[in-house]
Amino acid sequence: MWGSRFAEPMDPAARRMSASIGFDFRLAEQEIRASVGWAWALQHAGVLTQEESEQIRAGLALIGRDLAQPKKLWTEADEDIHTTVERLLTESLGPLAGKLHTGRSRNDQVATDLRLWLMDNLPALDEAVVGLQQALLDRSQSDLEILMPGYTHTQAAQPILLGHWWLSHFWPLQRDRVRLRAVRQSAAQMPLGSSALAGVPYPVDRELLAKELGFDGPNLNSLDGIADRDFVAEFLFAAALIGSHLSRLAEAVILFSSREFGFFEQADAYATGSSVMPQKKNPDVFELARGKSGPLVGALTGLLTTLKGLPSAYDRDLQEDKLPLFRAYDLLAELLPVLAGAVRALTVHPERMRAAVEPELMATDVADYLVAKGVPFRQAHDVLGRAVHLAQSQNTPLSELSLDELRGLHPAFEPDVAQIFDPRHSVARRTAIGGTAPEAVVAQIAAARRALAELPPRPEAVAAQLAEAQRALGERLSEP
Amino acid sequence: MWGSRFAEPMDPAARRMSASIGFDFRLAEQEIRASVGWAWALQHAGVLTQEESEQIRAGLALIGRDLAQPKKLWTEADEDIHTTVERLLTESLGPLAGKLHTGRSRNDQVATDLRLWLMDNLPALDEAVVGLQQALLDRSQSDLEILMPGYTHTQAAQPILLGHWWLSHFWPLQRDRVRLRAVRQSAAQMPLGSSALAGVPYPVDRELLAKELGFDGPNLNSLDGIADRDFVAEFLFAAALIGSHLSRLAEAVILFSSREFGFFEQADAYATGSSVMPQKKNPDVFELARGKSGPLVGALTGLLTTLKGLPSAYDRDLQEDKLPLFRAYDLLAELLPVLAGAVRALTVHPERMRAAVEPELMATDVADYLVAKGVPFRQAHDVLGRAVHLAQSQNTPLSELSLDELRGLHPAFEPDVAQIFDPRHSVARRTAIGGTAPEAVVAQIAAARRALAELPPRPEAVAAQLAEAQRALGERLSEP
Amino acid sequence: MWGSRFAEPMDPAARRMSASIGFDFRLAEQEIRASVGWAWALQHAGVLTQEESEQIRAGLALIGRDLAQPKKLWTEADEDIHTTVERLLTESLGPLAGKLHTGRSRNDQVATDLRLWLMDNLPALDEAVVGLQQALLDRSQSDLEILMPGYTHTQAAQPILLGHWWLSHFWPLQRDRVRLRAVRQSAAQMPLGSSALAGVPYPVDRELLAKELGFDGPNLNSLDGIADRDFVAEFLFAAALIGSHLSRLAEAVILFSSREFGFFEQADAYATGSSVMPQKKNPDVFELARGKSGPLVGALTGLLTTLKGLPSAYDRDLQEDKLPLFRAYDLLAELLPVLAGAVRALTVHPERMRAAVEPELMATDVADYLVAKGVPFRQAHDVLGRAVHLAQSQNTPLSELSLDELRGLHPAFEPDVAQIFDPRHSVARRTAIGGTAPEAVVAQIAAARRALAELPPRPEAVAAQLAEAQRALGERLSEP
Amino acid sequence: MWGSRFAEPMDPAARRMSASIGFDFRLAEQEIRASVGWAWALQHAGVLTQEESEQIRAGLALIGRDLAQPKKLWTEADEDIHTTVERLLTESLGPLAGKLHTGRSRNDQVATDLRLWLMDNLPALDEAVVGLQQALLDRSQSDLEILMPGYTHTQAAQPILLGHWWLSHFWPLQRDRVRLRAVRQSAAQMPLGSSALAGVPYPVDRELLAKELGFDGPNLNSLDGIADRDFVAEFLFAAALIGSHLSRLAEAVILFSSREFGFFEQADAYATGSSVMPQKKNPDVFELARGKSGPLVGALTGLLTTLKGLPSAYDRDLQEDKLPLFRAYDLLAELLPVLAGAVRALTVHPERMRAAVEPELMATDVADYLVAKGVPFRQAHDVLGRAVHLAQSQNTPLSELSLDELRGLHPAFEPDVAQIFDPRHSVARRTAIGGTAPEAVVAQIAAARRALAELPPRPEAVAAQLAEAQRALGERLSEP
Repeated sequence: MWGSRFAEPMDPAARRMSASIGFDFRLAEQEIRASVGWAWALQHAGVLTQEESEQIRAGLALIGRDLAQPKKLWTEADEDIHTTVERLLTESLGPLAGKLHTGRSRNDQVATDLRLWLMDNLPALDEAVVGLQQALLDRSQSDLEILMPGYTHTQAAQPILLGHWWLSHFWPLQRDRVRLRAVRQSAAQMPLGSSALAGVPYPVDRELLAKELGFDGPNLNSLDGIADRDFVAEFLFAAALIGSHLSRLAEAVILFSSREFGFFEQADAYATGSSVMPQKKNPDVFELARGKSGPLVGALTGLLTTLKGLPSAYDRDLQEDKLPLFRAYDLLAELLPVLAGAVRALTVHPERMRAAVEPELMATDVADYLVAKGVPFRQAHDVLGRAVHLAQSQNTPLSELSLDELRGLHPAFEPDVAQIFDPRHSVARRTAIGGTAPEAVVAQIAAARRALAELPPRPEAVAAQLAEAQRALGERLSEP
Repeated sequence: MWGSRFAEPMDPAARRMSASIGFDFRLAEQEIRASVGWAWALQHAGVLTQEESEQIRAGLALIGRDLAQPKKLWTEADEDIHTTVERLLTESLGPLAGKLHTGRSRNDQVATDLRLWLMDNLPALDEAVVGLQQALLDRSQSDLEILMPGYTHTQAAQPILLGHWWLSHFWPLQRDRVRLRAVRQSAAQMPLGSSALAGVPYPVDRELLAKELGFDGPNLNSLDGIADRDFVAEFLFAAALIGSHLSRLAEAVILFSSREFGFFEQADAYATGSSVMPQKKNPDVFELARGKSGPLVGALTGLLTTLKGLPSAYDRDLQEDKLPLFRAYDLLAELLPVLAGAVRALTVHPERMRAAVEPELMATDVADYLVAKGVPFRQAHDVLGRAVHLAQSQNTPLSELSLDELRGLHPAFEPDVAQIFDPRHSVARRTAIGGTAPEAVVAQIAAARRALAELPPRPEAVAAQLAEAQRALGERLSEP
Repeated sequence: MWGSRFAEPMDPAARRMSASIGFDFRLAEQEIRASVGWAWALQHAGVLTQEESEQIRAGLALIGRDLAQPKKLWTEADEDIHTTVERLLTESLGPLAGKLHTGRSRNDQVATDLRLWLMDNLPALDEAVVGLQQALLDRSQSDLEILMPGYTHTQAAQPILLGHWWLSHFWPLQRDRVRLRAVRQSAAQMPLGSSALAGVPYPVDRELLAKELGFDGPNLNSLDGIADRDFVAEFLFAAALIGSHLSRLAEAVILFSSREFGFFEQADAYATGSSVMPQKKNPDVFELARGKSGPLVGALTGLLTTLKGLPSAYDRDLQEDKLPLFRAYDLLAELLPVLAGAVRALTVHPERMRAAVEPELMATDVADYLVAKGVPFRQAHDVLGRAVHLAQSQNTPLSELSLDELRGLHPAFEPDVAQIFDPRHSVARRTAIGGTAPEAVVAQIAAARRALAELPPRPEAVAAQLAEAQRALGERLSEP
Repeated sequence: MWGSRFAEPMDPAARRMSASIGFDFRLAEQEIRASVGWAWALQHAGVLTQEESEQIRAGLALIGRDLAQPKKLWTEADEDIHTTVERLLTESLGPLAGKLHTGRSRNDQVATDLRLWLMDNLPALDEAVVGLQQALLDRSQSDLEILMPGYTHTQAAQPILLGHWWLSHFWPLQRDRVRLRAVRQSAAQMPLGSSALAGVPYPVDRELLAKELGFDGPNLNSLDGIADRDFVAEFLFAAALIGSHLSRLAEAVILFSSREFGFFEQADAYATGSSVMPQKKNPDVFELARGKSGPLVGALTGLLTTLKGLPSAYDRDLQEDKLPLFRAYDLLAELLPVLAGAVRALTVHPERMRAAVEPELMATDVADYLVAKGVPFRQAHDVLGRAVHLAQSQNTPLSELSLDELRGLHPAFEPDVAQIFDPRHSVARRTAIGGTAPEAVVAQIAAARRALAELPPRPEAVAAQLAEAQRALGERLSEP
């Protein structure tokens, strides 16, 4: 492709290391779509005649037909997907194919392709996140009123509803989706027309081309256009944070699935056994979810290290952007549906959960009971601390202290304190927004459903844009 | 604070390690503001009488007066900023102070304070970014028409304008600002009212309280409210990406300031010399800017590692969120203005830049010249490759090849090819959006100014909100 | 220090950012020791007269006397510790002080100081690791025969001894100590005499000087001497891996301290309570230990990012090596003794542990029972799997299946199978090296004690070397 | 494999995600070797009869014959390499195959296999490092006396020899090799016999088995044996530091290959051109080397994140150890030979290097000249600083200042100062160990050759051990 200035062919090992076709073949569809757009833009800029443009687009259309099996399109001798498509087009059209490369460069092509790929594939990932959200939401609905201990510091703290707990893992994913949407916007700036670095020297209408390809607009500086990988870093960060959220959900489920907690039981379809211990049922799916937060963080850190200190608009180091992007994407695209299935398939043991709500968990409620009788909270807290100490020293539940014993600690206690030890009472008090009272959780479920509706996986605008780009591509392929 | 259940005081070394007051004293202002809000909310919920609420708010106001020197407020004996403020309030009001803690917890307090701190301090950081953008923009204007080589692979590639180059470092910062704005939105969900984990058991109007404190609204799940540190991770990512952009600018400036490039000369005020080599002038400011991308990436990676796999809504591990946040913030707040000054103070050597624009850099233009005469670009590229090879073998500039020699390579060459070697001509052709032609760069400068205007450092809405929160705080302190 | 070539003073903000004295004052002792060595080396190289050398060493000795409070030595006007010491020496000796800087440079000085600092301080960190190892070893001895479930996948798997479990956290720390010893060797190459970059132009005997300063020898390439920060990266990696091991120990202790497991109870002296929930006792020390693995990983990642792609032997970016080093060191030096105390103070509940060893945990032993009767293990595993299924469907412990039921699954079962369900029997079988049988654990404890003896915290050789260096310094200060 | 306790097959998507055969097939050889060892150990422990053991070993030998194409051995239905080998053995031997699994578990198998794999493959990686070292050493020899500027802060500082510069990249790699050797020692502890977690319940001689398999010995705690991944982390750290060193070499070569420096010219066989700019020759190989430091750091960070906070001896998260290990290994195994070739193929331009050694670079030598006349270095440095300033203000080289002008700055200047500006003189003075004087560099080359000889790529001991293990395997396969 750059041959005539070079007297010697590339060293075979160097060539193998340098070639990217082994992974950038995944950009084939985007390469063809962007090329069709470019042929059309060159025609409108007067660089190609209508006939030339038509022929080129027809040639690209032919290549496009084999896209379902992109691995069949390329050979080891190709350097990258750009070389592949150019070779195939030349085999089909001869020297005319060489006109397509006017005014563009692999520098702006690869950045364009990668952005298009991400824009094309983000909706499916978003849907996978929604799939897990739906599973959490459905569990929340069906497990709504099951009482369980809420934990801080892995210590039982206060009673909550299981429905409330499930939802606490819904909202982080909703924030993740807001980030994915922002990634889409960062990706949707078109570099095509930046050429090698200085901009295209033909009167190409970049605004129109951007719109036709489904971008929000062209980038505004050609050097930045070929250098900018912010959108990859942003995606990897969003992916790492999704991984972080999944690791926290997974950790909790693993804990709750231990025999000692006994709250959850893994479904056979999502657990594995042991090659040695016949009695084992292991929560492998959740362990893998937790462990995979590692490679996701690693992909982000790796890209940031690669980007550090790059001096010129395009340096070959940037080739290292694709593998972490593809790997992080594939990892999540595979993991999320499995997790959704595993969440749905979990068996809950409400009686174990209820049994774990020991009377001590209502200590704060008892303190509040004193507050209601005019005791400052700090003093009430102190009284209850001593009550807990007393109960433990007697090896008795807190709720079994006699009224006399309680009065010995503070005179404000009265017989009605007994009902405070009912966890339903504790939960029912927390009706403020975000609280664990049944009606608050019902309201929260409704809010969650609204949030999903307001941020649909494939929003109208994007869907329309993609359809338009698809349609435009079709027309470009056929129109004069 | 939790004493009566414990029979033994904390081990001194454990206590020292556990205490966070050494760094969370920076949250003092936010702690007081949030406490004033809470006192007011408890009053409206009927938990405090008007008089109690007034007294508490007055007490907080007194503490607030000493905020200018927060380090004087606390002692080593305090565990954290919440303990400090509670102690001071108790010293001032006695047992009444204990009523303020009703229905809240350090879990929701610290999350609220940290979010408020970030919301308070993001505008100043954003302004610092804008300060560097302004320096780049001003340089772009004043250096607009200086010719220089544009580089890819650290190899001179095509002529560009220095004004265009400066702007290529403007736009990444603009994207950073969009991210900072998104961080603000992530931070602006109020956890206060999540209480320890299960929600507040009093009829607190969280929506109103959120608005009064300057939040966009309350978070919707109490467990998530105390667990969520996405906003810290997002900030650290935005900071790491700013660091990445600064490292790339710095690397290029360091290169261009080498004697071998000779494009830039460091100002004495921003360079350092050598303790051994009297002739040295070193670009230390830019080297530090490049090097500091390390701690910024480290802060992000560190937090993501800390967050991984945390099982319960609040785990003490979360204490490790503050230092990376403060450090990344301080680092950038110190670095950005220095960089802006250093950029403004650089001396440019236009003649060295012009001299580096060797005729070979117009090789693509000559290929385009052939394209205009009907030669497919690929073939034209090949012709020029051979021309470069020929010129190099004769040790002569590409522009000194005779017309006969050129015609020997392709018959389409004519005498008018000579003018193609004028870099002004090359630059002038690239008028499309984002190109390096003078008029395109002028348009780009205008677009940059518009972008700054559209995303002002302290947007009206935020400014109004902050003012409102400030005012509301004042009123809360004084109102009945 | 580099003044006369510069027409303008440094911008104040740039100067503040550039100055490192705020943290490199910690190198004061090393700076003085290395300077004494250098004065002596210059004398032996004939650059300083004996009298000059003596005066300089005496001047350094005077400064050294105030080292106990290094923060008092320096002022904000100093740039770094080298400037500080030079200024103090000049105040004391006048122009003669200027002779000390012959043939050296801050580039080799700072690398020398930092290596000495690490060599000086590694033994104390190693001792802190040993302190935790001793705590684990003592617990192992005293808890030796307590039966508990061993876990994989957070699922009870097979019975083990608690003594065995404690030791599983001993060995990783022993590997950490081997790594710390390797760090010491990496650090013990002396850069002094590399000068600015090209080597010292005087006949300094670097081998002798290296020995006198306690190094293993001089580095062998002056450019590498000032560039090499491998020893910092190695230390940060060793620290990150210590952090990883502590996080795993911490996670397990936190789990076992939950009410649901109930194996451990935190000592009051190492736990904290809740400001809201009077009954809470939280394992904060272990949570902080787990959380602090984050900043340790971050310090490593940050340095690796800083080092990436540095082009020249010394770049100012390298200034970013000190803070992560100091922070990681301080973090571990503070954390390890607290953890050791917390481990010693834990209360164990053997009866809870024993109760958790349910009959199912002996399923492998029963399979082995069949193996002993000639059944291939895979088939035996299958039989037991069905037995577990049967017992669960009857909601009965595995050990309560009747002999008939067992024989229904495989005819090889005989009455003696009953004893197989005794966990003591299961444990007793595992006598091979590294197994959990009591005698194997006793042997393991002996091996652990040997390992500590073979890798003592301050090995003779190092101790002797340090003493020698200390003595040599004393002599250098006094000798002619 | 664990079927009978499970009523339902695994969900297909979960199974796909869970399966590791897609990458752990690379452990096939190690799995077979360790299995042969185990069969032999079970025989000596009296668990297998001699005949059974022989049959099993013969069956394994048969499988081993197809190892050259491991991908053909397994099917998508296999879960991992252990399942594959067990399936193949069962197909060959029937139920007898099931006896091999007595007393072992996939937990200790996979850890054993992975350690063996690393021990088997480290020598080849070490050889690849040596290959690059040899290239640097050869260049050092042939380019020994070429004068060039040494740089700090990317600013020309003092003259050095190119031979010295090449060697400055040799020594970091030697340190890397020391680290790889340490990795080998960390890997060489045998987990086999740890069984699932509690140790093997048969009298297996683990010390003998360890020796036979080429390990240094058995690990000493069964829980730690299956949990320990320190050796993977250590390898990834060593790999990341190699990557760091390569990135620094690459950055310098890229800089020196720029037209502006003009010191190096890329060989055609290791450079690429541009698809747009016919004149470009880009140092892609070095850019890729620099960029790949990213994924190497990412692999390390990722594993450390995965390991953080794992609670039990074996958690499924540990499956995430293999891909980063294989990827980092493959990356370096591919990159190092290419870099060695590219270093050898570089063309040096000595005249460009010499021309860049401007008189100012001898400023320190002139200061030393004054020192030799009794001027304290600091004062001499100051005089030269003013001389540089004077020369620059006259736009003249420092060496062209007249003697009168110099004397105006300090009276000690005499006519012999002229020779000080000869860079050969400057270089010749630095004869101390590690200096850039020709004889010092010659000595350094000798030291480098000694270092290579003392740490050979395949040290006798290891080679002997591997051969012994190989031989033992052969015997195990055939012996009674």
